[in-house]
Order: sequence, then C-alpha cells, then structure tokens
Amino acid sequence: MSRNLLAIRHLEPTEITELLNRAAAFKEAVTAGRSVESSVRRSIGLLFFENSTRTRVAFEQAANYLGFHVVNFSGSGSSMSKGESLKDTILTLRYERLEGLVMRHKASGAPVLAAKYFDGPVINAGDGQHEHPTQALGDALTILERKGDIQGLTVAIVGDVAHSRVARSNAWLLQKLGAEVRFVGPRTLMPPHTSKLPGEVFYDLGAGIEGADVVMCLRLQRERMSDGLLSSTAEYARMYQINRSTLRMAAPEAIVLHPGPLNRGIEIDDAVADSDVSCVTEQITNGIFVKMAALDWVFEPVTEAVIA
Amino acid sequence: MSRNLLAIRHLEPTEITELLNRAAAFKEAVTAGRSVESSVRRSIGLLFFENSTRTRVAFEQAANYLGFHVVNFSGSGSSMSKGESLKDTILTLRYERLEGLVMRHKASGAPVLAAKYFDGPVINAGDGQHEHPTQALGDALTILERKGDIQGLTVAIVGDVAHSRVARSNAWLLQKLGAEVRFVGPRTLMPPHTSKLPGEVFYDLGAGIEGADVVMCLRLQRERMSDGLLSSTAEYARMYQINRSTLRMAAPEAIVLHPGPLNRGIEIDDAVADSDVSCVTEQITNGIFVKMAALDWVFEPVTEAVIA
Amino acid sequence: MSRNLLAIRHLEPTEITELLNRAAAFKEAVTAGRSVESSVRRSIGLLFFENSTRTRVAFEQAANYLGFHVVNFSGSGSSMSKGESLKDTILTLRYERLEGLVMRHKASGAPVLAAKYFDGPVINAGDGQHEHPTQALGDALTILERKGDIQGLTVAIVGDVAHSRVARSNAWLLQKLGAEVRFVGPRTLMPPHTSKLPGEVFYDLGAGIEGADVVMCLRLQRERMSDGLLSSTAEYARMYQINRSTLRMAAPEAIVLHPGPLNRGIEIDDAVADSDVSCVTEQITNGIFVKMAALDWVFEPVTEAVIA
Repeated sequence: MSRNLLAIRHLEPTEITELLNRAAAFKEAVTAGRSVESSVRRSIGLLFFENSTRTRVAFEQAANYLGFHVVNFSGSGSSMSKGESLKDTILTLRYERLEGLVMRHKASGAPVLAAKYFDGPVINAGDGQHEHPTQALGDALTILERKGDIQGLTVAIVGDVAHSRVARSNAWLLQKLGAEVRFVGPRTLMPPHTSKLPGEVFYDLGAGIEGADVVMCLRLQRERMSDGLLSSTAEYARMYQINRSTLRMAAPEAIVLHPGPLNRGIEIDDAVADSDVSCVTEQITNGIFVKMAALDWVFEPVTEAVIA
Repeated sequence: MSRNLLAIRHLEPTEITELLNRAAAFKEAVTAGRSVESSVRRSIGLLFFENSTRTRVAFEQAANYLGFHVVNFSGSGSSMSKGESLKDTILTLRYERLEGLVMRHKASGAPVLAAKYFDGPVINAGDGQHEHPTQALGDALTILERKGDIQGLTVAIVGDVAHSRVARSNAWLLQKLGAEVRFVGPRTLMPPHTSKLPGEVFYDLGAGIEGADVVMCLRLQRERMSDGLLSSTAEYARMYQINRSTLRMAAPEAIVLHPGPLNRGIEIDDAVADSDVSCVTEQITNGIFVKMAALDWVFEPVTEAVIA
Repeated sequence: MSRNLLAIRHLEPTEITELLNRAAAFKEAVTAGRSVESSVRRSIGLLFFENSTRTRVAFEQAANYLGFHVVNFSGSGSSMSKGESLKDTILTLRYERLEGLVMRHKASGAPVLAAKYFDGPVINAGDGQHEHPTQALGDALTILERKGDIQGLTVAIVGDVAHSRVARSNAWLLQKLGAEVRFVGPRTLMPPHTSKLPGEVFYDLGAGIEGADVVMCLRLQRERMSDGLLSSTAEYARMYQINRSTLRMAAPEAIVLHPGPLNRGIEIDDAVADSDVSCVTEQITNGIFVKMAALDWVFEPVTEAVIA
C-alpha cells in the first residue's frame, strides 16, 4: 500500500514535520553535489490539466534528482479531448504501468478521484480552489530556514483567499505547526463561511498584518475583475498592496512570501519583491526539495492504507 | 537494412507469431522485475500528428523499459505549421540522426511515405482509416492469454467498421492466425466494398455475434452523427450496444474487447465494461509489451529489404 | 563564471574556430560510435517560444549525446500565458536550478535579457530578426567540409535579408573568417541601412552570385506577401530562384545552402535542392554537432566574465 499526498488538511503534524525534515536533508545533499538517486527508477506521470511553469519544471527537476522517469501528459492532445472520462484516463495510465501520478486540475477534488482509481501514489499539484500541498510545504521550509521555527509565529495571508488553494494549504499547515494564521482581504475575495477558516479574518490590511512575522501575499487573478468581484486592480493595490509603507505595520523582522507568478505593482511592489525581506527565490528552490520529499514519502511502503 | 511495422496486412503469420512471442517474453521479464534494457540506447522520435493518450504513453513506457531515448514531436509547434512538406520533415528527422520513428497521422498511408524517406525503421501508430498494427498485436496477445489459441475462434467486430483502423488491423491479424472474422454494424458504417473485407458482414447484431468467442467492440466516433451517417447515438445503442442482454447471444465463455477510449452507455454499457468478460485493462497493459516487441523487432538487422 | 552564446557578431575569430574544431571532433567521435557523455549530467531548459522542428530536436539530440537532461518549456502552457514577465520566468527557471538555457524567442534580444537574469549559460536558438548563432556555426562546418577553408571564399546570401536572423549570423561569421559576403535580393527585402551590413548589396541575382563559391538561399516567409513587401511568390521565384539555370552564373564548383524548411519551387527548385551541390542534409546533421560544441563550450569555466 502506498501513500497519497492530496491535502495538507488531513496530515498529522508529525507527517508534515517528517516531510520537511526529508526535504531539508535532500537540500543539503543536492547542494553539496551528492547523488540522491533512488535505487528504483520509477516511472511517474505528470498530468497537468492546467497551465504551469514552476510546478511542472520543479517536479521534473525533483524526479531527475531522484532518478525517476517522467511521462508528461496534458489535457490537450489527449483522449480527454475525445470526451474520455477522467476515471477512464486514470485507469488507462494505471494499466499502462505508470507507478505514480502528479496531477494538477482545475476541478477541486480531481486528485482524490484519481487516487481512487489509480493503483499507486497520487500527489496533488494543485486542484481548483482546494489545495496545493507541495506549495505549502515549500513555503514552510522557507519560513523554517528564515525564522527557525513555525510554532508561535503570526502569519498574515493577504489577498484573494476565496479562490486560493495556496492560502488553504498554507493555512492548514501553519496552524497545525502552531502558528497563528490571519486572513486579510476585501469581503468579495473572502469565502462565504469565514468561520470555517483556520484563522481570524481581517478586511483592513493594517489591522491584519499588525505584528505579523510572516506576510504571505497571494496572486491576484485578473479574471476576478471580469467576475465583478473587484472594481479595479488600482483600487485593490491602493488598499491591499504589500510595499515598504504597508509593511511597516508588520513585525520589525517580518518576511514576505509570494507563490508566484507575481503581479508586480498590484499585490506587491518591486521594492519589496526584490528586497531582502522577500523569500520568493527561496520558495522556488525549496519547492524542488519538498517535491523530492513528497515523491520519496509517497512511494514508501506503509503497513495499512494511509489515504490523505 | 532495418524493418518497418506499417501494416498487419502484409505480415506473414510467422512474423505475427514471432512478435507475439517476443511480447509475451517481455511481459514475463518486466512483470518479474528483470531489466530488459537494450545494450544500445537508441534515440527514437514519437511523431503524433493526432491526439493520443494511451498510444503515446505506451510507447514512452515501452521505450523506457528498453532503455531507448525518446524525442516527442507533434504537428503543432513544428515546422509543418510553417507549411513544410511531410517528406522534408521526415528527411530533417533522418538527418538529425533519429534512429527510428513511431508515427500517428490522420492520413492513411502517411507512415508508408515516411518509411520511404527515413533511413531506419518506422512503426505505424495509427494512420487514418488504414491500420493500427500494435493495437491488433496487443489485442491478439490478450485473446491468446484468455483463450489459449486464436486458431478456430469466431470473432465479431462490432461497430463503425468503415472508419476503423483498429477493425482493419485486427481483422487481418485474426484471419491470418486462423480465426473466423465477422463484421457487424449498420450499413452506413460499413465500407462501400464489403466483399473486400476479410470476413462476413452482418447488419443484425444478434446474427453477427451468435456463437462468437470474442466480441470486439469499436469506438463510435461522435462526429459520425454530424456526418449524417447515424441518426442518434441512442438509436445506435439500441441496435448495437454490447451489454449483458445482447451478449447472451454470443458463446457462453465469450470475452469482450474495446480499444478505448470507451463511450460508456453507447457502444458498451458499464456492466459489461467493468465485468470479468471485459479485457479492456489487459489490452492496455499488453499494448506496452507488444510495443516493446515491435521496437525490438524493427531494429533487428535483416539481410534483405523487408518492407511491410 | 560561465559563457553565453548569444550572437556571432561579438565572437572573436579564434572563438569561432574553437567552436568549429570542437564540433568536428564531436562529429568524428559520434559517427565512430564513441561515447562523448559528459561526466556531469547537467539539466538544461529548452525554451521555445516560437515553433521549431529541427532546432529543438537537434538540441535534444545534442543533449542526449552529451548525457545532459532536458526540460522542455514552451510559451503556451506556461505561466507566461498568465502574464508573467520574461524576467520573472527566467528567474523562476534559475531558482529551479536549471543549469543552462537554450532559448528561441520572437523578440530580438530576448536571450540577452534572459542571460542578464539567469545564473548560468544561455544559448540563443534564434531571436526575432537578430541572430541564430548555431545555424551559422553548422553552416560554416558544412562549408569547411566541402571547401576546406572559408578564408577567400565568395558567399552570396540570397533572399529576404531584412527579416533573416540566419543571414545576419552567417554574414558575421563568414566575414570574421575571411570570406567575401554579398547580400542579394529585392529592395523591399533589404534592411533600411544596407551600409551597416558586413558585405556588398546586389539587387540583381546574376550580378550577385557571379563567381560565388557558396550560394546561401534564405527561406521566403510567406507572410511577406501580406506585409505588401512582395507582389507574388511567382514574381519572386522568376527573379531570385536558385535553379540550374541561375546557378550557372556562380562559380563552377559552387555549393548551395538553405537553412530549411524549404519552399520548393519558390526560392529554390527541386532539381537543385536534391542535387549534389545542395548541402541541406549536411547542414541538418552538422547542426547537431555544433550544438554539442556550443553546450560543451558555454559550460566551460572561464576566469573572467565573458559576455557574448
């Protein structure tokens, strides 16, 4: 029985710590130039039904360091454009002897469905507005490197919380490891039932990031304008942009994270994005090592079914 | 001189048997976890000018088990979108030192043209309404595993015979190995000169599958509706669907094959597709091993030109 | 500090000769079946923002012979379709630990920008109407093999000089190695300031190729018609096509090069394209070996910054 990595929400804190420890160990080995190739050259499918630069390339790099073989697969150019169901596509890939799947899909829960039909581990690489576990793991590794611990930190997640799988995965992870999580953004970009969120909600940026040790800036999807949820990006920037001025409200040593790609001048300005408080480049690099940890972890034999 | 695998029609029965024996040997080795990597790491091009999930992934897996290097190439994103002729594209790939080509193309005969200009083996991965040899080989391996022999079997191929390369390749192969082949479907989905088909034609499902040991269900291309060849999928399903009720007319131990992707509820129902008589998953897995056999076989040196 | 290969224009003749010597050595080794795998399995990104058959496949083959790992990346299906800037895309790939980039882009100078932000070598695989260095190197290797030396040759570059990066890179290379370069074509397809070109301009084909040892035929982009720069392809063919008749004006042993893909019957006719004077197939094959040389050369440590 193999494991899946479908959501942070259902992981135990010890499992998260285990994944972060493995990632740190992989980082140390790879940056020291030591080979970490697996003794088994597994063949995994990268199923990206949504556009991606960084996530797909990071998984390719992670697989490469581990000596895994990668088969790329996108929705276009596949039988799904002939109307094949996701179930039948997953069954096909299973019986074509792929040993693991990494999957991004616009529908929340698609990887859960895939895991039901695939006989081997499935890693969620981002599903709809649900979760993006390896993003949260990479962000956590970055915070750990900068702050030494996650326990006791105040983390403000700023922006389009309603539509962000990054916000969800990060919030669950940070709360599980003992951080205080806050959600900051306009009412139109908060989910309907904010009481279900694992943290307090603020509609005012100043109040929300006051004393925050970590400011996590979300990407503003431009399509929110056409949805009518925002009057303009300029209005949003005026009220919620993270820049040198607004950042003064946070804790003195506050750091800023952003999952990328950046809308420079909208949710974040150049001065902050390119300053020492920004962790953007470390987040990218750590993304590779947590993906290595995830690939390593999910293939590990477990004595009973562990469905995340 | 290397060999091509362009069509089942021009193979000798001994060649088909040889390919099936190799596939069975590869299956045994791979499922036992033994390495079957070739001593030569050949570099082959996968040219998919038409959409495909299973065939491309299966060839990637086959190449991976053999230790071959794969270069993916699709019609879009290539010089062919600049108006380059197929001949010049093939010549380019030849002089770029690709050692073999696997090719899918919407035009019947395109792989024959490719083989003329390419200096190395070409494998047809499906061309127009002509042939799809590795599909037929995988299906034959599946029938052999289930029935022990092909000689003497009655096989009913049901559906859109006119437009199906799968029907053509399977019919030729099964007839060459001694099966009795029947074609079953509406008149509008039968080719104009049915007397040229290697088997008897039936327009009634009951008569066509009566006593059949193997029922091979073809995929109904939905575009046949817009072509005006069918009034509705419901009408088709009512007259030709393979389900528990219609399957009672076949032989008691009849098995059902489908090349996928399945139109569940149209040419086949869920109950049959997911039952023990269905060979769909074995067909998928065996597809890998016959592709390994094909890649192994075509690169074998032959003393005189063998053009399939 | 690693090197880039962004443009022929800024290379020293000794550097060009060094690259050609390495390419010839790789060709000898590879065609003799000797392994030339690098001791370091580098991971490089192939960034093709424009369509390409031959260049991308040739780089994949070159990387394969060198034992490099390749990550493919195209503009579509990436974060650039979400509006990410080229700078941020390049930074992402840098922090995802890609070790080198090969880049094709429709904007002249895009690889220069990439080299500014990427911490590792960048190879220009064709940028707008600027340069295509590995094409020129492959053409030079082909001329060397046919003619023994480039010094003292007369080379006529015929066609759409204004829009051709191939013309630019070839002209700079050939002039640096001592050839006399001529540009031949209609006024509408010459750049505005012809005095800046490294060679004499001719508007008459006969005068331009008279006594030429090498005739380099450029591809006529059909979109020049819609630009209004040409009245018709037939008119162009009548005045500038390289065929047996027009080729009589060149030197007796003249050879013909074309970067492909060919517009047969327009800038070149079949008789010449498929004759012994045509070097088209050698150009394709040599393209692989100069790309190997380029990949080998750019990764070589240099003591001070060498920005090409």
